[in-house]
Amino acid sequence: MNTLKNDRFLRALRREPTDTTPIWVMRQAGRYLPEYRATRSRAGSFMALAQNPELACEVTLQPLERFDLDAAILFSDILTIPDAMGLGLTFAQGEGPRFAHPVRTRGDIEKLAVPDMDVELRYVMDAVRLIRKELDGRVPLIGFSGSPWTLACYMVEGAGSKDFATLKAMCWNEPKLAHQLLDTLAQAVAAYLIAQAAAGAQTLMVFDTWGGLLGPAPFREFSLRYMARVVDALKASPHSAELPIVLFSKGAGQHLGALADTGCTALGVDWTIDLADARAAVGSRVALQGNLDPAILRAGPDVIRREARAVLDSYGRHPGHVFNLGHGITPEVDPEHVNVLVDEVHAYGKTLRG
Amino acid sequence: MNTLKNDRFLRALRREPTDTTPIWVMRQAGRYLPEYRATRSRAGSFMALAQNPELACEVTLQPLERFDLDAAILFSDILTIPDAMGLGLTFAQGEGPRFAHPVRTRGDIEKLAVPDMDVELRYVMDAVRLIRKELDGRVPLIGFSGSPWTLACYMVEGAGSKDFATLKAMCWNEPKLAHQLLDTLAQAVAAYLIAQAAAGAQTLMVFDTWGGLLGPAPFREFSLRYMARVVDALKASPHSAELPIVLFSKGAGQHLGALADTGCTALGVDWTIDLADARAAVGSRVALQGNLDPAILRAGPDVIRREARAVLDSYGRHPGHVFNLGHGITPEVDPEHVNVLVDEVHAYGKTLRG
Repeated sequence: MNTLKNDRFLRALRREPTDTTPIWVMRQAGRYLPEYRATRSRAGSFMALAQNPELACEVTLQPLERFDLDAAILFSDILTIPDAMGLGLTFAQGEGPRFAHPVRTRGDIEKLAVPDMDVELRYVMDAVRLIRKELDGRVPLIGFSGSPWTLACYMVEGAGSKDFATLKAMCWNEPKLAHQLLDTLAQAVAAYLIAQAAAGAQTLMVFDTWGGLLGPAPFREFSLRYMARVVDALKASPHSAELPIVLFSKGAGQHLGALADTGCTALGVDWTIDLADARAAVGSRVALQGNLDPAILRAGPDVIRREARAVLDSYGRHPGHVFNLGHGITPEVDPEHVNVLVDEVHAYGKTLRG
Repeated sequence: MNTLKNDRFLRALRREPTDTTPIWVMRQAGRYLPEYRATRSRAGSFMALAQNPELACEVTLQPLERFDLDAAILFSDILTIPDAMGLGLTFAQGEGPRFAHPVRTRGDIEKLAVPDMDVELRYVMDAVRLIRKELDGRVPLIGFSGSPWTLACYMVEGAGSKDFATLKAMCWNEPKLAHQLLDTLAQAVAAYLIAQAAAGAQTLMVFDTWGGLLGPAPFREFSLRYMARVVDALKASPHSAELPIVLFSKGAGQHLGALADTGCTALGVDWTIDLADARAAVGSRVALQGNLDPAILRAGPDVIRREARAVLDSYGRHPGHVFNLGHGITPEVDPEHVNVLVDEVHAYGKTLRG
């Protein structure tokens, strides 16, 4: 393993002192970058891009060429696991993900098996290995997965949805079946992240995009519980035991304390909660990653700088802050605005941490 | 004015004792009812239905024929005000609202005027008068409006959106312009609700569907502040001064205390927060209306009954609970499930309040 030239991100996750606040941007390899759009267009489709390790590596590195980011994140999708389970993932233009074979019945769920990470998901591990090689220790590489709950949302609905009521109805009408599905998915997510760790990922992140659609009790029963199992499994594997684990449950600001109780290293925080309040909820148990409203990148440079400083101030001088957006960067953002953000975070972060 | 045969809803809003817990259902006159679909199909379009007082009255009363509901709500749309301002509202099939003339520039905003409630919005007042007559005191009638922030979201974006980033960008790049728009809208919303009160509405509700998209400080500055102005104006008008005022900010569970500080009578609560926690945040300052997850109506009758009881228990025996969903009922719900819900709320509510 090559040594890291920039370990600010890993140090902040471990709540160790850093010279300034590290930053990366959710979906930093994405459609707002013309070079990404060019590569994606060469690949033909989103899945063709994600499944080609050379191209996935290429787009993973693109934002690092432009911006002084402190981490790289594997270019992939949160739905690779169900695709590898045979559900047939496609992305129709402007429509989001769609599964050819949604999972609805007991029979569908009993047929699901944890994919072989060296076969069906080998393309992901190949991409991780290649990216690590090409990064050559510049910054650490983040591997990731969707959370069991979030994977189940799409698998049962078959596509995106405002409310994912099909899975919710299953949770209430046939809770054992829903738990069976989530249990299989927790095993798959853990195996997937452990394989990414073995291939070279240096931090593991779980995206629980839709946990916030649940009321408090169902959130604990159907979303949090299975993320906690994933954390336990990652800590029990020699490949991942030493790696930072980041959980991000969007819209789950009231559950931050319970999420920290899983034993993860850090929590992603969306922009609807003040980082000072988030920190009050978790104490010094975990680091926090966030939480600028992505829409602020559509404002002008002065506003971006001011709002970035407000986020940094809301966290304050405590160790353990990784700057990020509160959700993924959107396609219409001017890439130059990301430069403004990254430079301001590093400059102002230095005054807080120097 | 006719006397009310069932005043449970108004009494609960005022935190007075009731024989059982009152219930109504957001979007109770809606597509899940075959008789609604029939009337809408006769009308031709959603706006033709909303703008025809006889048909609007007909669909307003339809759910009361089927279910033992404790309130009626005017059938209309939250976007009637911008339509009356000349923005040209249409609903494309399955696509949600769209404005022919979105508001983007200073010129657009300076041209906006508060509509004449007896001219451009006369159809709404005619509907209110007719519904009151046809209700004949059975249950109270709720009038409503979108909040200034939520109206602005659609007016600036021109359609629905995941993030309404166009308005957010205006808030950050040209805050004075955004405030000018919101100020005009607060005046229009207040005038609209006062006119509904004068026409016979017995409770006034403000739907802030998109306030929860804002971070904490922008929520206070751009959403809450203008709802507070509406509340002040309603309390200052002889037509509305005595009417209960209900504010519903979806996804704003952390702001319930600040919303109660506006001096409103009650707060709508979505399903992502426990009513016991909501009540802890607001004390006995306001009544609470909510908060069953609408997706639970897709489960079976036993689950609906159990979850309804859980909501009732979470509020407990304190006065001031109006049962409702945490958001609007969805089209695929079996109407018989609403009967199950209403009957359970009344039966179990009696054991808490009898």
